[in-house]
Amino acid sequence: MRKKLRVCKNKPQEYACKAFVSVAMCVSCGLFLHTDWVEEAIAKGIGQIVAVTGTDAQKLKKSMAEANIETLLEPYRAAVKEQGDIVKKLKDSKGDEIELKKAVSELKIRKKKLEDQITKLTPKEHVIDRLKMEDLLKRRFFYDQSFSIYGGVTGLYDYGPMGCAIKANVLAEWRRHFILEEQMLEVDCSMLTPEIVLRASGHVERFSDYMVKDVKTGECYRADHLIEGEILTNLIIQLLMTGFILGHLEKLLKAKDINNEKKDEIERLLPQIDNMKSTDMHATIQKYNMKAPLTNNDLSEPVAFNLMFATSIGPTGQIKGFLRPETAQGMFVNFKRLLEFNHGRLPFAAAQIGNSFRNEISPRSGLIRVREFTMAEIEHFVDPADKTHPKFDDVANLEITLYSATNQMNGQPAQLTNLGHAVESKLVDNQTLGYFIGRIYLFLTKCGVNKQRLRFRQHMSNEMAHYATDCWDAECQTTYGWIECVGCADRSCYDLTQHTKFSGIKLVAEKPLPASKKVIVNDISTQNSIIGKEFKQDKDIVMNYLNKLSHDDAKNLHEKLNQSNNTQINIDGKEFKITRQMFELKTSEKIVHVEEYVPSVIEPSFGIGRIMYAMWEHNFVVREDDEQRTYFTLPPIIAPYKCVVLPLSGNNEFKSFVKLISSSLTQAGISHKIDTSSGSIGKRYSRSDEIAIPFAVTIDFDSLKQPYTATLRERDSFKQIRLKIDELANVLQGLSTGTVTWGVVTSMYPEFKEQQATAAKEDSINE
Amino acid sequence: MRKKLRVCKNKPQEYACKAFVSVAMCVSCGLFLHTDWVEEAIAKGIGQIVAVTGTDAQKLKKSMAEANIETLLEPYRAAVKEQGDIVKKLKDSKGDEIELKKAVSELKIRKKKLEDQITKLTPKEHVIDRLKMEDLLKRRFFYDQSFSIYGGVTGLYDYGPMGCAIKANVLAEWRRHFILEEQMLEVDCSMLTPEIVLRASGHVERFSDYMVKDVKTGECYRADHLIEGEILTNLIIQLLMTGFILGHLEKLLKAKDINNEKKDEIERLLPQIDNMKSTDMHATIQKYNMKAPLTNNDLSEPVAFNLMFATSIGPTGQIKGFLRPETAQGMFVNFKRLLEFNHGRLPFAAAQIGNSFRNEISPRSGLIRVREFTMAEIEHFVDPADKTHPKFDDVANLEITLYSATNQMNGQPAQLTNLGHAVESKLVDNQTLGYFIGRIYLFLTKCGVNKQRLRFRQHMSNEMAHYATDCWDAECQTTYGWIECVGCADRSCYDLTQHTKFSGIKLVAEKPLPASKKVIVNDISTQNSIIGKEFKQDKDIVMNYLNKLSHDDAKNLHEKLNQSNNTQINIDGKEFKITRQMFELKTSEKIVHVEEYVPSVIEPSFGIGRIMYAMWEHNFVVREDDEQRTYFTLPPIIAPYKCVVLPLSGNNEFKSFVKLISSSLTQAGISHKIDTSSGSIGKRYSRSDEIAIPFAVTIDFDSLKQPYTATLRERDSFKQIRLKIDELANVLQGLSTGTVTWGVVTSMYPEFKEQQATAAKEDSINE
Repeated sequence: MRKKLRVCKNKPQEYACKAFVSVAMCVSCGLFLHTDWVEEAIAKGIGQIVAVTGTDAQKLKKSMAEANIETLLEPYRAAVKEQGDIVKKLKDSKGDEIELKKAVSELKIRKKKLEDQITKLTPKEHVIDRLKMEDLLKRRFFYDQSFSIYGGVTGLYDYGPMGCAIKANVLAEWRRHFILEEQMLEVDCSMLTPEIVLRASGHVERFSDYMVKDVKTGECYRADHLIEGEILTNLIIQLLMTGFILGHLEKLLKAKDINNEKKDEIERLLPQIDNMKSTDMHATIQKYNMKAPLTNNDLSEPVAFNLMFATSIGPTGQIKGFLRPETAQGMFVNFKRLLEFNHGRLPFAAAQIGNSFRNEISPRSGLIRVREFTMAEIEHFVDPADKTHPKFDDVANLEITLYSATNQMNGQPAQLTNLGHAVESKLVDNQTLGYFIGRIYLFLTKCGVNKQRLRFRQHMSNEMAHYATDCWDAECQTTYGWIECVGCADRSCYDLTQHTKFSGIKLVAEKPLPASKKVIVNDISTQNSIIGKEFKQDKDIVMNYLNKLSHDDAKNLHEKLNQSNNTQINIDGKEFKITRQMFELKTSEKIVHVEEYVPSVIEPSFGIGRIMYAMWEHNFVVREDDEQRTYFTLPPIIAPYKCVVLPLSGNNEFKSFVKLISSSLTQAGISHKIDTSSGSIGKRYSRSDEIAIPFAVTIDFDSLKQPYTATLRERDSFKQIRLKIDELANVLQGLSTGTVTWGVVTSMYPEFKEQQATAAKEDSINE
Repeated sequence: MRKKLRVCKNKPQEYACKAFVSVAMCVSCGLFLHTDWVEEAIAKGIGQIVAVTGTDAQKLKKSMAEANIETLLEPYRAAVKEQGDIVKKLKDSKGDEIELKKAVSELKIRKKKLEDQITKLTPKEHVIDRLKMEDLLKRRFFYDQSFSIYGGVTGLYDYGPMGCAIKANVLAEWRRHFILEEQMLEVDCSMLTPEIVLRASGHVERFSDYMVKDVKTGECYRADHLIEGEILTNLIIQLLMTGFILGHLEKLLKAKDINNEKKDEIERLLPQIDNMKSTDMHATIQKYNMKAPLTNNDLSEPVAFNLMFATSIGPTGQIKGFLRPETAQGMFVNFKRLLEFNHGRLPFAAAQIGNSFRNEISPRSGLIRVREFTMAEIEHFVDPADKTHPKFDDVANLEITLYSATNQMNGQPAQLTNLGHAVESKLVDNQTLGYFIGRIYLFLTKCGVNKQRLRFRQHMSNEMAHYATDCWDAECQTTYGWIECVGCADRSCYDLTQHTKFSGIKLVAEKPLPASKKVIVNDISTQNSIIGKEFKQDKDIVMNYLNKLSHDDAKNLHEKLNQSNNTQINIDGKEFKITRQMFELKTSEKIVHVEEYVPSVIEPSFGIGRIMYAMWEHNFVVREDDEQRTYFTLPPIIAPYKCVVLPLSGNNEFKSFVKLISSSLTQAGISHKIDTSSGSIGKRYSRSDEIAIPFAVTIDFDSLKQPYTATLRERDSFKQIRLKIDELANVLQGLSTGTVTWGVVTSMYPEFKEQQATAAKEDSINE
């Protein structure tokens, strides 16, 4: 069969080719190109090629796997280590700031080179054909672009029945695993958020990306993506030239004149993009004469673009608001209520599942970077003086791949590490943070994330917000690279302090002092009538100032007034003459039993869409014997339906059995699909495998005889057993909640083989 | 204890009173006033009194219950019936339009009078003190105003741990009851919606309310609410004057001079407000010289204000978008994908749970009218020619309170009706609509809505959208009156037709014809080069016109050209001369086996917040022996926690039992709370009753002896049983999923009484 292939916007025609194999992706429009057109495009100088995938890429990778990888990596690791040592030395000696910056920049370049080599050289057991997977995801409506009958909107996606069921299962498991297990306090807060809240959190000021515009058409590009794209194009051309590519493209590319020096210079830019300021970006764009990708027009200077969606609340437009960019703020502003709900006791955790919004400048990478997405966040409030966790022992024995800041600095790879040791050695800052890393690991792997392709990467000191104590991202390896799926940060007391400052409401907890203590308390009194007469409209300023004086300042003022009857004070640049009559200070002793403190917060933050995407990639399989048969090995608790019910044929006698089984499954709360369509049983099995249904119940002619039985088939192993119909719901309930494994079930019931044979026979007849 | 009482904004002071009893509500700010201040306010002419509640109102109601209610209602019913007959006659005779309008208007007035009488006269078994309930809901953080540390935003609420757990339970039950049971196709679509989609749905044009502004301050009011408020104030004053009020207020109110004629005139306005146009409202405001409530300033003319929140998508602002005002549109725009997912077969239902947004002009009534809310909607697509439902028999025997349009017209009350009969007699238009009414009824009552306070009200022809076939609202009786919680409408093919029109994509289904038939197909060919030469830049207009000619028009044109070689045609006001060379028509016969049709859609639409609010009112109880002990009788499946675990005291030996029980409950997926605080056991029971926890497990000294046992207490009956600790999780799982009743459990285990006595004793010591 010949399939049509989507092609680049710049050449809006459709090609037909024998197999659905893509060779390269166009940077401007993100579409995959067919070989023929790649040649043509390069010849004509239109389009930009960015990645090599498909069958040829797989061949390439296989041959590389045979080389001794570590030998090849050795020089790269050494280069990182050497530079890491220089940086450490400069830091320790507190040397010249500019020197240090340069050294860090060089370190990043070397790290990036090493990572690229690792990506290139490591044999991938699980390389998947993303296009094939996305085709399945869209064809069976796991998800697709929103509003596409109206042309669609970039960065907005709808989940169809399969995606929606998977999402509901992931969230239900999240509630069980985190909220129920830890008795967290779940909240559900407004998405519409008034401006002041997001000023306090820093989002109004800092939550932005740099954007450049095509000066003629007004088309916008994210500046860092544009620069990155330009550089990648050059690098790919290099890659193509150095022989990592099919011979017939090579000759075309040799025409492009890129010398090694320029290559090296460009390559060094790549790791610096993330930290570039507006001026650096502008300079880079000008130096390399970068143009708008679609039109080749000039580009504007980069300007900061705030990523929040603005709207106004109420009819007069007087309340400026935004759609929240994260769910966390709702928990901080409710801190007092939650503390009270918890009888004033710490630690406790708040949790929230909900949607957030980011107005990305030019969203790409499918589900990885979208404008509207579901998050699940936890804010665990804890006394900064005691971050131990009573249940840490439950996770201390886990062996998890940790990619420490030191290893990143030294060019060493991520390492399988015992979590208990990691906390003991202070690699992970404290038990509570460590506990959450362990729980996140358990959650992700339970949902089907492959632990071989999951790592926790520590933020390096230059990546971390200045207030954060320690931060680890759970990253999943996908065809988009290692993507952050869960962040887990100890944010110290930053958030509550900010909201206290902006709202004027003290967000603190109390704890008993080891022993009660005496404190000296100021008792300030001001003579309002005298102050009012003297300072008229400024009287409130003065009174406010006097009443809020600190203990020491009040004492000073009091002494001065006692000595000289009056004194000048300066409030916000204005001078006021204060007399002894205006101000009186008495001090008294008070015994206090508790002290107030601002809690620290440890914040695990889950991107649900990204986790789902990683799950899909990690569970996508092509049947060995048939390239057209693709399916997902999702675990039963996550699978959209737990089971499919299939009558062997349209025979009328089967109908009542289908109804009976379906209603017993519904009663047991087992989601299932009935497939009475006319396809062969083999076709129907493979259709249900495609949507990750782990079990299939088939009614055949033997089902009609007493005792009534049916067969139960497992998706991944193809194995079948035969059991009584009235035992089905019970067995499937165990299997779909994960309390019983398929291994246990097969040991209890006889294996069934006949029908498989029938199915195969039938298939050959039907095809 | 003396409690402080919130008072009207117009008088921002706090009063203290002996009991927390409110007497009236201020229209301007919605706060409840204390008796003393009501007197003062009326004397000074500030504030507007709108409702009488609290203890005095209850006394009033009790005395009224003794009168023979139906006798009192008789004249009102007769008056409605009389006018209803006139309207029917006018409709049947297709008489004068203006006459008919007048008659309908008079009918509404009479209906409103009747309803008011019913509300006034019917004895309320479940009259609750809303203030007391709201106090509990906020104190235990079921919900509260969003962002209140920043002063809050009207119409936005956050659910705390209790509200959030209840909401999650309601939604989980909704998924089981609707999606799982009917195998609906759930989707999860974007909230951000481009303008074109909401133009197609009619929201851009019509989704608005009229608003008036205070001409000096710019403060906005919803015009209908303002007029209603003014009228109600007058009516209340009347009510007070006619003796339905405490004597000591009466004398104050007599001062206000309102004669019966004016009263009657004003009263007649009330039912007409909903249908008033902008000009009518303006006239009313001017006639009665209505002013801005807070300032007494003049008011602007009413202007339409669109209730959608606008934002722009993407960096250039070129994509105008809105936050969706309902979830329905996401399902319509995905119709093609869903139909394909369902193998092209109808009927099927799509379902969606998600948030929607409405920028209310001046939200009030707490959770009833908010700016951001969760909906659950179903779109059941069905062949308009066959609206039978295969499972209708499952609900046909339900007896449901239906308030038909006819009964509303005739002044008759809502009637308990057999659902099967209602569909048979065509009172409910079709089986599918009837099936959903039944399923909605079962869902609401399962969630704890009181069936005595639930009715399905049919829309009258003048309320219904012109395209709708039949529409029934599930309304719950609350202290705010009967409020719509679920709408259930047969919307015919309106929505799909609109989206087809606006998107150009055909949204239709196919069905096999009873017998295949021959159709004549046009085969039009145009001579593009000749047309191009002749009409230059207009060539596309002409070609498009010719190619889209209907069968008959093409035939006509063809014949004309055959007769006279050329002819003039008019396209959008422009003349074109068409020659025989330009246009060729061939016809051919084709045999077709299927026909296309636009499906009808039946739409049950649930407001989750409103349902929760109704559930709370219907389940709020004050303990007979203690006014301070209030609690919610929510059913276990909805309760936020299924159980509380309580050690009798702080004794160290209890701790390991608490841990053991808690972990067995967690494993069984039973949400629970542990209360190890120091209060007496009685206090802790009543604290867990407050948050609707249905069961309490208590560990006492007998628990320490083998076989280890604990007591299990039920919230509503106070009854306790004693059972083995290792049986607890199993029993509680049955109870909390509703598969076992408390009645069954008590028959299996011995009743336990001792500890109750201990608790009571302990209470008396502690108090």
